[in-house]
Amino acid sequence: MDTVFIAGVGMTPFGRHLGQSVKDLTRQAVQAALQDAGCERAQLQSAFFANATQGHMEGQHMVRGQLALRSMGIAGIPVVNVENACASASTALHLAVQQVRSGAADIVLAVGAEKMVSEDKARMFAAFDGAWDVHDVQASKARLLAMGEGVTPPAGSQSPRPYSVFMDIYAAMGRLHMGLYGSTQAQFAAVAAKNHGHSVHNPLAQYREAMSVEQVLAAPPISYPITLPMCSPVSDGAAAAIVCNAAGLKRLQGNASRAVRVLGCVLQTGSDRAADNLQNHLVRKAAHRLYAQAGVAPQDVNVAEVHDATAIGEVLQSELLGLVPEGQGGLAAERGETALGGRIPINPSGGLESKGHPIGATGLGQVFELVTQLRGEAGSRQVPGVRIALAENGGGLAGVEEAVACLTLLGR
Amino acid sequence: MDTVFIAGVGMTPFGRHLGQSVKDLTRQAVQAALQDAGCERAQLQSAFFANATQGHMEGQHMVRGQLALRSMGIAGIPVVNVENACASASTALHLAVQQVRSGAADIVLAVGAEKMVSEDKARMFAAFDGAWDVHDVQASKARLLAMGEGVTPPAGSQSPRPYSVFMDIYAAMGRLHMGLYGSTQAQFAAVAAKNHGHSVHNPLAQYREAMSVEQVLAAPPISYPITLPMCSPVSDGAAAAIVCNAAGLKRLQGNASRAVRVLGCVLQTGSDRAADNLQNHLVRKAAHRLYAQAGVAPQDVNVAEVHDATAIGEVLQSELLGLVPEGQGGLAAERGETALGGRIPINPSGGLESKGHPIGATGLGQVFELVTQLRGEAGSRQVPGVRIALAENGGGLAGVEEAVACLTLLGR
Repeated sequence: MDTVFIAGVGMTPFGRHLGQSVKDLTRQAVQAALQDAGCERAQLQSAFFANATQGHMEGQHMVRGQLALRSMGIAGIPVVNVENACASASTALHLAVQQVRSGAADIVLAVGAEKMVSEDKARMFAAFDGAWDVHDVQASKARLLAMGEGVTPPAGSQSPRPYSVFMDIYAAMGRLHMGLYGSTQAQFAAVAAKNHGHSVHNPLAQYREAMSVEQVLAAPPISYPITLPMCSPVSDGAAAAIVCNAAGLKRLQGNASRAVRVLGCVLQTGSDRAADNLQNHLVRKAAHRLYAQAGVAPQDVNVAEVHDATAIGEVLQSELLGLVPEGQGGLAAERGETALGGRIPINPSGGLESKGHPIGATGLGQVFELVTQLRGEAGSRQVPGVRIALAENGGGLAGVEEAVACLTLLGR
Repeated sequence: MDTVFIAGVGMTPFGRHLGQSVKDLTRQAVQAALQDAGCERAQLQSAFFANATQGHMEGQHMVRGQLALRSMGIAGIPVVNVENACASASTALHLAVQQVRSGAADIVLAVGAEKMVSEDKARMFAAFDGAWDVHDVQASKARLLAMGEGVTPPAGSQSPRPYSVFMDIYAAMGRLHMGLYGSTQAQFAAVAAKNHGHSVHNPLAQYREAMSVEQVLAAPPISYPITLPMCSPVSDGAAAAIVCNAAGLKRLQGNASRAVRVLGCVLQTGSDRAADNLQNHLVRKAAHRLYAQAGVAPQDVNVAEVHDATAIGEVLQSELLGLVPEGQGGLAAERGETALGGRIPINPSGGLESKGHPIGATGLGQVFELVTQLRGEAGSRQVPGVRIALAENGGGLAGVEEAVACLTLLGR
């Protein structure tokens, strides 16, 4: 199969950008990616645009990508609007890679942009409500929250202030993990502390404050075992990648040796399973397919960005991806194995917890970090000698797991 | 390039289906397509799901396809939610074809489903408002309506009842056409009368009442030169296609000789141009690319389904596609050239005007008709000896034209 490359990446800082529109954010990320790749706008032959909430937030239910890209002078080429909840941007990348493989184009843009921060807090928090079956909310909630029943939250471990039901669901998954494997709240806190520590070195991260495990544990509770610094914030931002084949790469003005190879891409939809049957978790299935596709084993991975919408997510995903033994995601963080300098650094960018989570841009934000790592350009957060890098991006909820997972394996 | 086939198609009746959900409509169309192709659900390796309004109508802003397909037992496989306004379904087909070409899958589902009819009329009509730039409504409106300035609407030619601004825009395009080419309201009426006549033979059409040109002209006015029967209605419905390569086709239980070949697929985004510079219209550009891709000339096309959201649309598109000479789209209808039995039958299904326009399903509804025609299974609306069939599906508005056009050329 022909090699597919990522020739350039760009992203905005993730954070609160009240004064900037989806168009503004898109333009910044795309211009940065074009410049990074040495690519002229006119060389783009196609684009995939990821966004999940502009309909809800602004009433822009359709042709989001055409409008955002046209406002920066990218017109005429095929543009497809892609939505897969929080995995929208990695799905856009996946389609760009497939399009290049199909022979339909040599140089393709994948971009994700999201604008969620709003003065209208009710609307802002309601943005997530469209990420599961709106016709089955009570049953979904009951089914998902039941996962946490084996562990009783201690008194005072729930926020008195309003928060998203999805945090309760992540908390239930965390308590299931505690029951199955004996993991502890301190281990989840170790994940968050590690990621906040990483973010100090990432100038594009929303939060850049180091936190100790003790500080994470002492922070305001959300839903046991989750405390505030274990949660990703609401964010604005955009990220983009220029995808090409060898012929396309030759036409670009960038330094071709900085291009990164796409070793594998897997998109997986969830399926029904018992909550404690993690062998059938969609991410485990997707990981099997990914490693087989690339001819790589989990221990070959040098660095990973995984979907830590909460610290619980990172614990689960790092196990499901085979980066740490089953049940030991929290323990690995506690031991420093997943920190910069550890055996398998996870979320060197700071992860969603610190870097931010503009949901339709997040997957390409992960790819931005991994491309930077593979190039050896990550500065004080550089993982030494990175040859193979893995991104895991999840989206939505259905059954007892994410509705979608999208995995990307990159290499030099 | 490997041949890509459509092995099966299915669609619901288009119309008012108040008691049916997006899941219900999806299931019916997909089951029909699977049965038509002799395909088991488990043989599907991937799916593209098109929808444009479920966020607006129901708050289901994300993972629409995963939820709809999972409710009918299709889980695990990659699912991508695709939106390109009224061209969403043809875009889903386009991506399915590319995915098969990329080698990532042998058998792929493309499905579009839309549920727009509602007791809440205000919400229903507002569904279209997300199809252009919500941050530039006044300027867009002024620019688009200016196209009609050369022809003054006669007294009494505007509806006193509320209607969508998009009908005013189509009307302005119609008046531009009248000014440029001398076309007449009676010619637009001839298009509508022809399509309503065709729909009598289509059991899946929303309206199946023949109308004379005189009846169309005497019908309630909407916005000059448009009268009510020249407009597509608000509709619910779903349509699906099973796309495969030769290896996939062999695995299916259907009659392989009923499979139809995909000769070409072009997705095009609009660009800025002067309103009267139709040489640079996105559909003309897309048509050039499509015919070149397939090695076919416009006169080789035996039957076409074009995007007649209003009769004006059919007039414009049939010219831009090269099916009739420039400026003569209305004249051709008046002369019977585009009717069943004419030189180049257009919209034998009845078109959007009669068949209905569930926007995220429309493009695959067109493909359903053309596959049926190519197989010689269209009964009393069969065009004799169809070898090559063309679908044109447009979506959204930007600048002075559609934001997106998606063209599909099919053959035996």
